[in-house]
Amino acid sequence: MGWCLCKCRPLSTFSSLLYSSKPSLPFPSTFLPSSSIKSSFFSCSISSSSALATGTFTWEDVFRVSQSAEEEEENNSSYLHGYFHKVQLCNRGSGKQSEFLPFVIEGQTVGFIHAGFVENFKSFNDVFVYIKDNSNGGSVGEFFSLHPMLKTAEERTSAVAYVIKCLGEKHIPGIRNELYPVVSSFGSPVLFSLERAAAPYFGIKAYGIHMNGYVEIDGQKHLWVGKRSNTKQTYPGMLDHLVAGGLPHGINCKENVAKECEEEAGIPRSISIRAKPVSAVSYMDIDGYRYKRDVLFCYDLKLPENFIPKNEDGEVESFKLIPIRQVAEVIRKTQFYKPNCALVVIDFLFRHGYITPENFGYLDLLRSLRIGECS
Amino acid sequence: MGWCLCKCRPLSTFSSLLYSSKPSLPFPSTFLPSSSIKSSFFSCSISSSSALATGTFTWEDVFRVSQSAEEEEENNSSYLHGYFHKVQLCNRGSGKQSEFLPFVIEGQTVGFIHAGFVENFKSFNDVFVYIKDNSNGGSVGEFFSLHPMLKTAEERTSAVAYVIKCLGEKHIPGIRNELYPVVSSFGSPVLFSLERAAAPYFGIKAYGIHMNGYVEIDGQKHLWVGKRSNTKQTYPGMLDHLVAGGLPHGINCKENVAKECEEEAGIPRSISIRAKPVSAVSYMDIDGYRYKRDVLFCYDLKLPENFIPKNEDGEVESFKLIPIRQVAEVIRKTQFYKPNCALVVIDFLFRHGYITPENFGYLDLLRSLRIGECS
Repeated sequence: MGWCLCKCRPLSTFSSLLYSSKPSLPFPSTFLPSSSIKSSFFSCSISSSSALATGTFTWEDVFRVSQSAEEEEENNSSYLHGYFHKVQLCNRGSGKQSEFLPFVIEGQTVGFIHAGFVENFKSFNDVFVYIKDNSNGGSVGEFFSLHPMLKTAEERTSAVAYVIKCLGEKHIPGIRNELYPVVSSFGSPVLFSLERAAAPYFGIKAYGIHMNGYVEIDGQKHLWVGKRSNTKQTYPGMLDHLVAGGLPHGINCKENVAKECEEEAGIPRSISIRAKPVSAVSYMDIDGYRYKRDVLFCYDLKLPENFIPKNEDGEVESFKLIPIRQVAEVIRKTQFYKPNCALVVIDFLFRHGYITPENFGYLDLLRSLRIGECS
Repeated sequence: MGWCLCKCRPLSTFSSLLYSSKPSLPFPSTFLPSSSIKSSFFSCSISSSSALATGTFTWEDVFRVSQSAEEEEENNSSYLHGYFHKVQLCNRGSGKQSEFLPFVIEGQTVGFIHAGFVENFKSFNDVFVYIKDNSNGGSVGEFFSLHPMLKTAEERTSAVAYVIKCLGEKHIPGIRNELYPVVSSFGSPVLFSLERAAAPYFGIKAYGIHMNGYVEIDGQKHLWVGKRSNTKQTYPGMLDHLVAGGLPHGINCKENVAKECEEEAGIPRSISIRAKPVSAVSYMDIDGYRYKRDVLFCYDLKLPENFIPKNEDGEVESFKLIPIRQVAEVIRKTQFYKPNCALVVIDFLFRHGYITPENFGYLDLLRSLRIGECS
């Protein structure tokens, strides 16, 4: 479960939000119903909050919230607000786009780099070049590019890798020695490859696969939910999908799903072959110098009732099978889920009819699942 | 099956396209894969084309195309082009948006009216008013509105109805005496109601429900396909959903689905209650003075194997149950489907895993299903 490029945000940060009185609105209100935002989860009462306040929660906390007796009218105009808030958590800082300069290769914008971060490039003017282009009818375009001497993908990859190595953990924490392809859009030629941890500093689009593993018991859908290991660097202890992963260079989505199914949940290929691509979500999240532009391919896998997942890579503490309506309540009322996983579960809720046009804000929420450039 | 506000385009118009060598590209190429557009359906060989050329086709033609032996690599870069072309058919004339003026009520843009069509309003200046607003920092905004004396929804509805009656069939053909709500976004207050046939002349958003009725036989999905009556005013003889309808004033989607299920396919409420809202598609189509801005709520209904639909309103000639992969081929290779239904079937193909990230252009096609303002 390595699909997270974000700086580690310990759960305590989220827990504090649980008790905040008003969420911020980091993206234009057009994505939201016009009425004032007052997320339903703020009224959620959790009797034993001490565990949450310290940045950890247990499965017991999850079940208590999910089975909360609190009844809420589904056609209440605020019913979807808990979901909107999860979308917001993945789409922060849209007002700060002007702080970034386009990163252009072969005439295609592949990323965005913060004006502050480019200061690091001063000693590397044989790799990164600043271009001020006023050829376009008098209007001036400013952008960053790679030195024109770097003509092939291989040359660019090694030149950029050298810069990243020099900048080191101080400027690009969490280096993984794993390469992501840099493309202008999914499926187009790879212009070069970039260290995964550096992707948000260059604002390149990163692709991943997220899989909802579910079981149908007596006609009721249940979702397999993972709880991340408390020792994970990113989002420790939080709820996650059964299977999810970034899409590294040189492997396609289908193959990656099969591989991650084996590694993360012990799902043999004879079963994972039935995983279906069903949708995609996207978000854009600005946090300091980091501009995450992620596109997640969503998969559904209907599992046999008797299947028990088994994590093979030590990144998951445990899995639980939870009725989908209870999962929905956990997402609406808490921030237990890793934010981008919440988005993919919301997409599942749409596709399986658990969010309906009678819920006020239906189309706004549906649209908000692809706020980021989904290409 | 009345969800069509378009001018009647007889099938012969489409048939001629079947043999055209190059489709037009009515919307920006960003919606399409960057490679040149050469839709796969142009290479489709139909031995007996005389029936098609006269504007009619038979179920036999449908099955011949659907079972075409022609094998095509799914990872061929042109595999999705037949689908892209169907999206284009619903999204014509985007370059002509500047010919329209916003139609603004209570400060909210609810529609767009062609500069030529507003000529008709000259004798009705107690109903329609032209406003040139230069209060916005010197930039001038031009728009149409209703006379400020028309304060309530009722007053507006009857004043506009009077104008439409005066303009008559000459200017607004196909008047149905059915009212559509005028809103700025779905679920927001109804500002007034408008004759359904007039909706595209005012560019108001029109909402509808489209339902994919399917059956699973030996693990393979089959879609119930309707063939419209040859006497229908719009899209006679073309392929259609099992159930579809516009959303008139005063009825919600769920109730409308149940009502249309009964009327159009004889599906009792005991079964139609299982219909699930799963998605929404939207398009914007400019054709002369008409600006269609439709949002369709998509539903899936899994039907029992032994269920046989029965049309009760005479608008459907017959229904056939067709394996979904064959339906997909019909959509890719022909224009037999009513264009907006093709969009909803493509959405079904995405959600059920029949279009995959390995198909070049996956994200572009997915995004193109909501080109219109989906709100």
